[in-house]
Amino acid sequence: MSESRGPGRRPGRRPGVSDTRGQILTAARAIFAEKGFDKATIRGIARAAGVDPALVHHYFDTKEGVFVAAMRLPFDPAVLVPILVTGPREEVGERLVRFILTITADPKAREPVLALLRSAVTNDQVVAMIREFMVEALLGRVADALGIPLLRMEAAFSQMFGLVMARHIVQMEPMASADPEELVALVGPTIQRYVDP
Amino acid sequence: MSESRGPGRRPGRRPGVSDTRGQILTAARAIFAEKGFDKATIRGIARAAGVDPALVHHYFDTKEGVFVAAMRLPFDPAVLVPILVTGPREEVGERLVRFILTITADPKAREPVLALLRSAVTNDQVVAMIREFMVEALLGRVADALGIPLLRMEAAFSQMFGLVMARHIVQMEPMASADPEELVALVGPTIQRYVDP
Repeated sequence: MSESRGPGRRPGRRPGVSDTRGQILTAARAIFAEKGFDKATIRGIARAAGVDPALVHHYFDTKEGVFVAAMRLPFDPAVLVPILVTGPREEVGERLVRFILTITADPKAREPVLALLRSAVTNDQVVAMIREFMVEALLGRVADALGIPLLRMEAAFSQMFGLVMARHIVQMEPMASADPEELVALVGPTIQRYVDP
Repeated sequence: MSESRGPGRRPGRRPGVSDTRGQILTAARAIFAEKGFDKATIRGIARAAGVDPALVHHYFDTKEGVFVAAMRLPFDPAVLVPILVTGPREEVGERLVRFILTITADPKAREPVLALLRSAVTNDQVVAMIREFMVEALLGRVADALGIPLLRMEAAFSQMFGLVMARHIVQMEPMASADPEELVALVGPTIQRYVDP
């Protein structure tokens, strides 16, 4: 309980690189849950983890990077967004739908996403974190890159979110077993319409 | 515990119309949870409630009617579907989006829907019931009435489901506060495209 006050450590516990990283992520989860994504800071997470802020930057680069690792997201918006918005503008819809279907086709990548969706709809604290992260780090950035109003990007998100829910959580047939390319052809034009200003 | 075996009743408990109705609904919730919507029968629900099947028909007409009442759904597909598919075919998209936004705008009607969505994503038994009911009583029927493949109707559903989640559960701005008619104009054409064969 008062372990963090004293310098003493239990025998057999060997702090090392992975331990520090884990300590930061544990602290980050608590801070994000308490303050939400917007108000959380690298400094605050470092303080809660008992490490220097430079270490947090070293391991995770940005606050978003900490969030992605803490929530075990299978993608990093900082990497993802430029990929999604690069390429022919008239193919953005297909590209986004294909991306979301590909990432959720792999059970290992899908599970953290579904876990996050599940806790988002049942836990107000989690939903606030997700909302702030989604809007700021993902949707806002894509909307800016494409030069469209945020509302249109949120409409596109709502379609992809519903698609993942219907296919992988509700698992309604024939959608659950549909060929991904059939869904790209069906839903891609919806997203394209939203992102065409 | 063994109350149902004997004819004895506790004093002060006056069984009446509403009591029988409540008994049927309690039994129905257990049966739907155990067997799912497809395999549940009026006969089975009546047996579990200790009443004659004719009484279940009297109160709720159909198995769907029992489900709607047991789940406290704010709409009955048997009533709703004909309304939704009546009128100009080119306005079906707008009509569906306006309906879902109107029903979820009223907190009293919204809460049971959100509660159902929440338990659907976290409870496998509930999700199976919802899936069977949605596909059989709602989406399949609309798809038939419109003469389109079920997959297209499920795509339309996924968009409306995502819209309700983004607006009322994730509550992302500006979507959460957007004017309903702005959303009808934005999302209506998506639904229209799905239901145009």
